[in-house]
Parts: sequence; C-alpha cells; structure tokens
Amino acid sequence: MNFIDKLTNATRKNNSLLCVGLDPDPKLMPDGISVFDFNKAIIDATSHLVCAYKPNFAFYEALGNEGLDALKRTVEYMPEDIPVIADAKRGDIGNTARAYAKAIFTYFDFDAATVNPYLGFDSVEPFIDYPDKGVFILCRTSNASAIDFQSLRCETGAGPHLLFELVAIKASQWNIHGNIGLVVGATYPEELSLIRKNHPDMPLLIPGIGAQGGDLESTVRYGVDARGEKAIINSSRQIIYASSGKDFAHAAGEAALSLRDQINNYLSTLTSG
Amino acid sequence: MNFIDKLTNATRKNNSLLCVGLDPDPKLMPDGISVFDFNKAIIDATSHLVCAYKPNFAFYEALGNEGLDALKRTVEYMPEDIPVIADAKRGDIGNTARAYAKAIFTYFDFDAATVNPYLGFDSVEPFIDYPDKGVFILCRTSNASAIDFQSLRCETGAGPHLLFELVAIKASQWNIHGNIGLVVGATYPEELSLIRKNHPDMPLLIPGIGAQGGDLESTVRYGVDARGEKAIINSSRQIIYASSGKDFAHAAGEAALSLRDQINNYLSTLTSG
Repeated sequence: MNFIDKLTNATRKNNSLLCVGLDPDPKLMPDGISVFDFNKAIIDATSHLVCAYKPNFAFYEALGNEGLDALKRTVEYMPEDIPVIADAKRGDIGNTARAYAKAIFTYFDFDAATVNPYLGFDSVEPFIDYPDKGVFILCRTSNASAIDFQSLRCETGAGPHLLFELVAIKASQWNIHGNIGLVVGATYPEELSLIRKNHPDMPLLIPGIGAQGGDLESTVRYGVDARGEKAIINSSRQIIYASSGKDFAHAAGEAALSLRDQINNYLSTLTSG
Repeated sequence: MNFIDKLTNATRKNNSLLCVGLDPDPKLMPDGISVFDFNKAIIDATSHLVCAYKPNFAFYEALGNEGLDALKRTVEYMPEDIPVIADAKRGDIGNTARAYAKAIFTYFDFDAATVNPYLGFDSVEPFIDYPDKGVFILCRTSNASAIDFQSLRCETGAGPHLLFELVAIKASQWNIHGNIGLVVGATYPEELSLIRKNHPDMPLLIPGIGAQGGDLESTVRYGVDARGEKAIINSSRQIIYASSGKDFAHAAGEAALSLRDQINNYLSTLTSG
C-alpha cells in the first residue's frame, strides 16, 4: 500500500490528524529506561490515537550506534497500519541522495521522509523515485530563523514569489508519482493558509504546535484539505514528556487523547460552519 | 587547536589543497574488504598528500549500524594532524540541530561539518557554537539542479542578489568565531570566482572536480585565497576507486599524488603570473 493510502486509512481508523514525534532525549526520559523501551511504551499507549509517527534522526544519531539500533527496532515494532515518517531533512547530490534514500526506505523501512530542497530536483528525485513512499519537502519551517531565506522575495518569469512559495510550486511540478507533501510550520498560519489554498491536495506535515507556540485552531483551520484530512499535525514534547515519572506512557496516552480530541473539536467547528 | 589552524598546518606540511572524499560503496570496492579496512588502506596511502578527508554520511548510513561503526573507527584512525570534515549537510531547528552537532562533533569527534542553510541562522548556530570546529555552509552546490533555487534573483534592502550570494553574505555576518566556510562547487567557476572575490578569507570546500566534470585549473585559480590556500579541493571517486583490484590503495596513492601535483602546478602558474 502506498504512503498516501496508508496515511488516509490511519487517519480514518483512528479518527486522528495527530502525529507523535518520537524524539528521545535521555535528559527528559525517566531514569534508567532504554530508548527502545521508552518508544515502545509510547507507541503502545498512543497507536490507537494517531495518524502517523515521526522520529527525528538527530536524537538517535546523538546517541551513537545504540541510538540508531533503537531507531531500527522502533520502526520494526510499529503497528502495520500506522505510517512512520523519517524526519531526517536530507539533501545531497544525486548518487549521495540515492544512498540516503536507500538508508531510510530500505535499511530502516520508513514509509516517508522529510527532505531539504536547497540542492534542487536532483537531490529530491532519488526519494520520489520510490513511488510507494512519501516525501515531505521542507517549505516553510517552524523555527524563528525560517525567515532568513525562506521568505526572500524572488523574481521569476511568472512574477515575484517568496522562496517558500517557489519551493511549493516546484514540488507540485515534481509530483509525477503523487507522493510529495510539504512541511509547513504551525507557527506561520498565514503562510500555511496560502500553501493550502494553492496546493489543495497535498499532504502537509505541520510541526510547531505546543512547545514552539503554534496556534492549534488556526493550524487545523488552515492545514486540512477540503475533506478535513491530509494535515499531519505533529507534537513531540507535549506528548512524550507529559510526565517524567514511571507513569510517562499513561500520561502520553492521556495527552495524545486530549490533543487528538481538541483537533477534532476544531475540525467539527469548521465542517459545521 | 582550532579547525582553521589545523587545516592550514596540514595544507603546508603536505603542500596540498587536496581533500579525499571517503565515500565507500560496496559495489565499487574490492571484493570482500570491510569498509573500515578499505578506508584505513586509503588513509595509509594518502595521508601525506592531503589537507583533509571528507567522509559523506550517506554512504555509511546506507550500510546501517555496521557502516556507522566503520565511520566512527575511521575518524578514530585518522592521523592527529589531518582534519576530518563530516559531509552530512544537516539542517534542522534549534534543539534538533544541537543534537546533530553533538553527534558529529562529540560522538564522532569530527573537526568540521557541512550544514544546509535553508532553515536559517538558528539551524546553523548550534554548529558554530563549537568555536574550535569548522562549519561549511552549502552555498552553491556542484549538482546540475543547484540552479533550481540557489540562482534565484532575490530582492533585499541592499538591492538584488542571487540566493547563493545572500547565503554567503549571511554566513559572513554569522561568522563571529571565525569558524565558518562555504561549499562552492567546482562545476560553477563563475560563481566560485564571485564568492572568492567577495569573501577573500573564508575557507572554501570545493567538490565537483573529476566525475562531476568541474575544471581543475579554474577551480585552483578562483578557489584559493591571496596566499594560495583555504581552498579544499575534494575528489572522491577519482582517488578511492582508481583501481578496483587488490592494488586499490597503491592506485589511490598514485592518483592522489598526481592530483595534488596538478593542483600545485596550476597554483605555481598563478603565483608566478
């Protein structure tokens, strides 16, 4: 089954647009637990409440081979019907990008990956060449410094556009397999609204609610497609560190339930409005 | 010793601007040899001929934990006086970028890293915050699709600039520790010349000669600083796969010697001209 169908099925089955970011940080995890056991407990407590999981490679690489081993076991442990997105933000030239795509899609067996557009099409192509895998291109990221380059006004033959808009336009042109999505931060609701308007069918991966300060209501309002789907709203710290005690998994389940339902409440306001 | 001093010392000691890219590909390596043993033999045959080594993470990640273990052992094996650049092209938001910087500079103990500028300052800051480490920001990459975004004409308060020029200008502004360099591909000599003119003191990491088609003479001419230094001219496949037989290390040594001397010949034409 391809990524988009797997995502849609999980969204509907769990009635959820919530993605849980699996970003293990030993300083924030309960004492003495391994990364894999931590992830396993979080997955067991939340897999009926999410549309996807998103581990960020950085947190695993920072722990060395032990971390990457835990990452591989985590992907293997995932329930069959929940897609897993590799948040790796890779971007490199042709033969090297092919090696990264192979690592993410073949060695780790992720369902989707995030990629950086700065190097252009030939850095993205090796990822989209896996037609059953999803590829989320960084468009407008959630961090404060995103404006340094992403909001530059650029001249094109078709008039001026901001850089992140041009990235989205190129991504649409590259989308011959229908497996491309965009990363747009919840911290920039206007930009999110603009991207959704211009790209009504693309899945949007939306980080930045919670600790980063993105507003949930506008994220839901501007992020979803016409069916109220294809917005993958990520939360990491708010869920996985809901408690630092022995009850962390239970607390993660409660936090995920609450956030999923908040999202669905905003969604019902939209569709009834 | 900080990265820039280590680079300058290695450049002078070995009379070399050559950087060897350690990109192990089992399909191209001699049958039956391990990645670490392959790298070790290449290092033994070339370490008196180079100013730096540059392993690209993708080739190690594609081999799973075994590959990353070989990468760690490779960095440990390096001669004390030759800097090692992690070609990882990372770019992520604050706390995540910190985890990547920690992985590269602390877990692996690299001397320098490549980073992607698309996310702006807060994605680069965690790397430059290691003042003794070098940080090479992708500016104008060597691949054909680099033009997709890097050559867009952008409006700024100070007039129009191409995106890669703006990246270089920002990089200069961020360079409070003096540890920032730029990646500029040998395949774009005009852009290389422009960047060197506007940033006379920055180290430039220059991929793209050899298999990618960059011209060596213009790379040397436009890449070096006023002293004929601070150009790190990378070659991977031309050196490490000079032979696919049992004599691969010897062939790599011959190829590195020949390329170093070609570079120095072009350099002597310049300084005598």
